[in-house]
Amino acid sequence: MPPLVSLPEALAASGSPGLGRRFTVSASATDSPVTPNAEFDAWFARHRRANRFKVTRIPFSDLVGWRFREGDGNLVHDSGGFFSVTGLEVNTDWQDRGTWSQPILDQPEIGVLGIVVKEFDGVLHCLMQAKMEPGNPETVQLSPTVQATRSNYTGVHGGRRTAYIEYFTSPRRTLLVDSLQSEQGAWFLQKRNRNMIVEVTGDVPPHDNFRWLTIGQIHRVLGQDNVVNMDTRTILSCVPFETPDGLIRNEVNPEYRESLARSLSGRHGSLHSTGELLAWLTDIKARHSFTRRTLPLSKLDGWSHSDDEIAHDEGKHFKVIAADVRADTREVTRWTQPLIAPVERGIAAFVARPIDGVLHLLVHGKVESGSFDTCELAPTVQCLPVNYQDLPAHRQPRYLDLVRDAAPDALRFDAVLSEEGGRFHHADNRYRIVEVGEEVPPHDDQDYHWMTAHQLMTLVQHSRYLNVQARSLLASLHTTW
Amino acid sequence: MPPLVSLPEALAASGSPGLGRRFTVSASATDSPVTPNAEFDAWFARHRRANRFKVTRIPFSDLVGWRFREGDGNLVHDSGGFFSVTGLEVNTDWQDRGTWSQPILDQPEIGVLGIVVKEFDGVLHCLMQAKMEPGNPETVQLSPTVQATRSNYTGVHGGRRTAYIEYFTSPRRTLLVDSLQSEQGAWFLQKRNRNMIVEVTGDVPPHDNFRWLTIGQIHRVLGQDNVVNMDTRTILSCVPFETPDGLIRNEVNPEYRESLARSLSGRHGSLHSTGELLAWLTDIKARHSFTRRTLPLSKLDGWSHSDDEIAHDEGKHFKVIAADVRADTREVTRWTQPLIAPVERGIAAFVARPIDGVLHLLVHGKVESGSFDTCELAPTVQCLPVNYQDLPAHRQPRYLDLVRDAAPDALRFDAVLSEEGGRFHHADNRYRIVEVGEEVPPHDDQDYHWMTAHQLMTLVQHSRYLNVQARSLLASLHTTW
Repeated sequence: MPPLVSLPEALAASGSPGLGRRFTVSASATDSPVTPNAEFDAWFARHRRANRFKVTRIPFSDLVGWRFREGDGNLVHDSGGFFSVTGLEVNTDWQDRGTWSQPILDQPEIGVLGIVVKEFDGVLHCLMQAKMEPGNPETVQLSPTVQATRSNYTGVHGGRRTAYIEYFTSPRRTLLVDSLQSEQGAWFLQKRNRNMIVEVTGDVPPHDNFRWLTIGQIHRVLGQDNVVNMDTRTILSCVPFETPDGLIRNEVNPEYRESLARSLSGRHGSLHSTGELLAWLTDIKARHSFTRRTLPLSKLDGWSHSDDEIAHDEGKHFKVIAADVRADTREVTRWTQPLIAPVERGIAAFVARPIDGVLHLLVHGKVESGSFDTCELAPTVQCLPVNYQDLPAHRQPRYLDLVRDAAPDALRFDAVLSEEGGRFHHADNRYRIVEVGEEVPPHDDQDYHWMTAHQLMTLVQHSRYLNVQARSLLASLHTTW
Repeated sequence: MPPLVSLPEALAASGSPGLGRRFTVSASATDSPVTPNAEFDAWFARHRRANRFKVTRIPFSDLVGWRFREGDGNLVHDSGGFFSVTGLEVNTDWQDRGTWSQPILDQPEIGVLGIVVKEFDGVLHCLMQAKMEPGNPETVQLSPTVQATRSNYTGVHGGRRTAYIEYFTSPRRTLLVDSLQSEQGAWFLQKRNRNMIVEVTGDVPPHDNFRWLTIGQIHRVLGQDNVVNMDTRTILSCVPFETPDGLIRNEVNPEYRESLARSLSGRHGSLHSTGELLAWLTDIKARHSFTRRTLPLSKLDGWSHSDDEIAHDEGKHFKVIAADVRADTREVTRWTQPLIAPVERGIAAFVARPIDGVLHLLVHGKVESGSFDTCELAPTVQCLPVNYQDLPAHRQPRYLDLVRDAAPDALRFDAVLSEEGGRFHHADNRYRIVEVGEEVPPHDDQDYHWMTAHQLMTLVQHSRYLNVQARSLLASLHTTW
């Protein structure tokens, strides 16, 4: 019988004492003899050069293996697998949105996003991959050890084996992180993936596409545009770091650093109890009507279907397009697939400010069409500005001007990061953390509440509280200690 | 600006110190001068006598205001409101279930189940209602202050005012409990209600259908057959009781009492960390395929539709019936409505045993067709035995014989309790908590894990972990201190 463990330390999946500390030590290691930064930079640049892919838009009729199904007109794969594009009708009184319909990706299965970690000289290192995705602005990004669909994971269809997947499927695996997290609610119908970190102790076979990096080394490049992919960011957002006392890396801004450290610790209080925050989220869900039903893709109002795209009639939101993907090398790699292409770069930002010396983030309770559970915790601002350009001032996203026009010295994090490149084409967002002061009063209301970093870290251990953009920003926040 | 509160005490919605203690003190008060037990018994008996209702099955064609809609054959209300009966097709590899279709209730809105509490002489009392529901075996049961649909709650449709609803809608309400919880996954499509406890301090207008009772007084009758209704039980399951040190009421079985007290406290360890339990639940969701889609009610395989019922061809599961409800008094109260009628009494039971002196409950990770999130934490046994009578031994529900044939001295709780009488007709279950010893080893597997009472109490603060039968049993467990 396993020994009894006490509960207070139990939020981390393993419950093993000192786990948070081990992650924090890894984050404080900004370089490593295992893969020195210079070697990493050269390796990553080499993979970007070597894995040039040409991604070309094509007419839907040139898709191979995909078709608009008779009857409902949904865009489906001949195998019945992968994903499909269907129609969705949503009705909600949230923000007076009313009724709309839209195309949406339907992939009713849970994939695995997983990082293998291993100690070298007492410091946890992550096995990271230089991985190409067709929708990425730079096709190769720094990716987790494994991104696997359920078919890869369970092996039911006997598809191509995903490298290192056995570390995640073994019943004797040592889980350090394991939770279901949602994907983009505006584009995906209730899609979730399993975010995992598994620790290994034995030898791991090397592979040229993979390198061992500390979390600090990943943090070093997370602030660069389009280097660290979304799947890496969402896994890192689930890491239960201990407060980095004595391991702070940010020498530039001691005042911010101190208020962030207090925010991470959970021992310095918060504007609201976590229970109050859960009640607030419950209130949004209960107060608003929200119904949705799938529609035939051929029956969408307000969207036009041409030979090579399904587009919104007012030029908002996104397009469904078809792409031909081919390797720019002699290797014979080529395929076609549908992609979702947002019409412009989005913005996703947290407004942050110290309250009684503890950094708080202004969290938006946001309803999105495909969210697993109606309303999730979102960044203060998360939008494509074009969607609002014709609306009156009172319907503009609140705080948009504040974060878009923020002075450079208020930016604690600022980078262009892209969403999942396997489904989304050039779907990048400007991610920002903007620190404000007394000029933004610490009031909140029905739609926005102030939370500490520790509260976000507590809730992300459970599924479905933070949306994927909020998780990207939580992962980014951890680079600013 | 509100004062900062610290996080450890934050799971209770208010975060107010001593809240758990106040609930425990109320539970330890088994009688009260406000409504002495003798007076309560007389009042409740009087309401049962005075509110006799005659509930008669009728043909569907005699329903007033309800019809089978053209096109899909769904059973709907003319107003488009209330609820509808639709078809559902489910496919899952969980327990090799494969594909099936069934009727299911669809009510895509969040109602409120709420109890108003108030201190009398320093002890919290609950404002409880003697309320009639047409499906109840005894039509009147002890019910929360408020059971309101979203229309009642928001007042959007201007329907009949629910008494005391203003205590739950006021922005200045003092919330002690507030969370979304799921309803019966076998009969309801992703239905949830908001479970609330609100504290008031001022005068509350009296009403003959309502009485103030301590939690101990409710506990006194919760073990009686069909007295305390499901809505009361699910709200009470969310109460964050403090460990009842010194306030124990159970004088009969000190050994059980001690192991239960240690199980409630969270300070005496547990077989698994809560993180491990969440990872186990994640694993079930990720490992199994699960898809569902609504179907026209007229297109169900394996169900037959006659003039007065929709029934399963093998006599399993439940029937959809129509009922005429009329008061047995001179008052003019009469209506008709559809109801779900299970084909027999079910059983819902936790197997419990001390592990290292701490009581653990054997929790089943159960997939139900209409569950909000595929798999929820369920009692060790929860079934209608008839559904399995023709299946081979290896497909029988595990532990069914153990809990059905348990010796009387192993029963820590044993009562027949019914599910929501507004939708379900004579849907009662035998609820049991069966204590076992060394003969049941403390092993668990992919489908069953041992948990402490404290762990269940921690998870129930979040939405969607415990199913409604597990919550009824958690509420019942609290009567056995």
